[in-house]
Amino acid sequence: MRVNAYAAPAAGQPLTPTTIERRDVGPHDVLIEIQYAGICHSDIHTVNGDWGPQPFPIVPGHEIIGTVTETGDDVTRHQIGDRVGVGCLVNSCGNCTHCQNGDEQYCENGMIPTYAGLDRDGTTTQGGYSTHVVVDADYVLTVPQNLDPAAAAPLLCAGITTYAPLRRWGAGPGTKVAIVGLGGLGHMAVKIAHALGADVTVLSQTLKKKEDGLRLGADAYHATSDPTTFEQLAGRFDLIVNTVSARIDLNTFLGLLAVDGTLVNVGAPAEPLSVNVMSLISGRRNFAGSMIGGIALTQEMLDFCAAHNIGSDIEVIPADKINQAYERVLASDVRYRFVIDTTTLH
Amino acid sequence: MRVNAYAAPAAGQPLTPTTIERRDVGPHDVLIEIQYAGICHSDIHTVNGDWGPQPFPIVPGHEIIGTVTETGDDVTRHQIGDRVGVGCLVNSCGNCTHCQNGDEQYCENGMIPTYAGLDRDGTTTQGGYSTHVVVDADYVLTVPQNLDPAAAAPLLCAGITTYAPLRRWGAGPGTKVAIVGLGGLGHMAVKIAHALGADVTVLSQTLKKKEDGLRLGADAYHATSDPTTFEQLAGRFDLIVNTVSARIDLNTFLGLLAVDGTLVNVGAPAEPLSVNVMSLISGRRNFAGSMIGGIALTQEMLDFCAAHNIGSDIEVIPADKINQAYERVLASDVRYRFVIDTTTLH
Repeated sequence: MRVNAYAAPAAGQPLTPTTIERRDVGPHDVLIEIQYAGICHSDIHTVNGDWGPQPFPIVPGHEIIGTVTETGDDVTRHQIGDRVGVGCLVNSCGNCTHCQNGDEQYCENGMIPTYAGLDRDGTTTQGGYSTHVVVDADYVLTVPQNLDPAAAAPLLCAGITTYAPLRRWGAGPGTKVAIVGLGGLGHMAVKIAHALGADVTVLSQTLKKKEDGLRLGADAYHATSDPTTFEQLAGRFDLIVNTVSARIDLNTFLGLLAVDGTLVNVGAPAEPLSVNVMSLISGRRNFAGSMIGGIALTQEMLDFCAAHNIGSDIEVIPADKINQAYERVLASDVRYRFVIDTTTLH
Repeated sequence: MRVNAYAAPAAGQPLTPTTIERRDVGPHDVLIEIQYAGICHSDIHTVNGDWGPQPFPIVPGHEIIGTVTETGDDVTRHQIGDRVGVGCLVNSCGNCTHCQNGDEQYCENGMIPTYAGLDRDGTTTQGGYSTHVVVDADYVLTVPQNLDPAAAAPLLCAGITTYAPLRRWGAGPGTKVAIVGLGGLGHMAVKIAHALGADVTVLSQTLKKKEDGLRLGADAYHATSDPTTFEQLAGRFDLIVNTVSARIDLNTFLGLLAVDGTLVNVGAPAEPLSVNVMSLISGRRNFAGSMIGGIALTQEMLDFCAAHNIGSDIEVIPADKINQAYERVLASDVRYRFVIDTTTLH
């Protein structure tokens, strides 16, 4: 099946319209007609070659919302007409300890990413900037009907990336949570942490987006460019979710943690961070990392967002604005996520 | 009460015999006749001025074993003749959240260290290299009779420092634990982790102490100077307790952790460590710190060690060999802890 798509022909090149082949629908597969695909910062890193050589041409996109239009003979999980989603992974071995534990993203045999990955049939995966995709039904999520489909697209990466650490490290009533950075990931983290019942503080470089932060659910908003922030909030937080991939002065942030608190990075700066070990020892603190989430947890997150009426704050664009949108993401000029209307690819 | 002691008169000076004043036994205090005091590496750091200015003269020693010889009117916890111990702290506010949670070492108003600390009565605390000490009864531990008193002394610091993270991060049957470094702390960590039922691996620079490690309870012993160690053991451990205060290449050790594994430092290198955040994210790993332990947990540790017949491997010395012992500790020439027979001070 030949379908329309937008692809990066080579590292650092603008994306252009093209067609790609989608595999036949196998017995465990579903064919999805894509409606929306979010633009994630990692799409840009990948096509720019920031993360090393890639199998170009690449069709990015791992925040996919669409409708099932065909199902393989053995598929019972999804039916034709269902609204579904696909996130950052489309396959894994299914048999290792981590897959069995629902941590497919940590599959011992390697999870298969939604694009630029080598699928188990030997083909290169291609993502959601396209009209259709064929995916193993076990890696396809059910998207509750009350979610706005465009606003739900970013839940598949930005949503689960922040939901996973908030759940794992116990954000909820009685806990104090700080979110570092108010971008695509950060704004989802604020919404989710608030809905989980936590007391939420945004730590952003400036107070420029303060109104937004409070509207999204934050109880407090502080500028990290103001040194008094770090005095005022010393020892306050049970959990800090750092959504900023740029290098930060980690030790000043560790000082904001209560005893037994955890600072968890969901982005990885290119350079290593310097950790003053006494910052950890002096409060039995943790510095951790978290990467997206497994399929079952992603479904839990979607159901949670549906129950709490949470979507991403988005700007919907036609496919021919993808390159412009990339420029604007790099300039932090979006509140808070671009979503491609992939019906404009027809 | 004027008592004999060994004190450092100034930073970097050899310790010399002296006398010091111990306070009167208050209603909540006990007077302890000291029998043994362990030599901890932090004693040496403190008197050498490695940790900043100190209130000299200093009598070090926070691994204290002795016998109660007098009790205050309100003391019910200990009786005259009891064998007791004193560890790294002799007071705290008792009222803050952390004190109430049994984490007196993280007292919000500042725990009072056993020496070189400003006690709540305004005096400077003086440690266990002495014949007697007066301590608030609530900060005095009961030392089970079946423990050898000299070998029990190091439990009060080296024991609790390693027991606390092993318990907190769940070392036990079915878990794989690595201990980095086989010194005073490391050898206790091996014994305790083994007694907790964990599968224990020692990671030491060389195989020089391999026989010792296996005798102490390790199931495996690997040299970190051999790069194949890091390939062979990649992703293996649920918990790594790093007892080495020198700077290590943290990222290579993080690679030895399983998904959700924790590397916990119990020592603080003077310089910050460089952390490749992807090492954390790629396995939802934690880098943590832990500092000694609270009073209730220290008592639990002593009872655990008594039940499992665990003491430190020690070399007992008279007080006039303290300065020599310091030299040998700095040269790693002790297996594994010096303990001062403080009756030689009489």
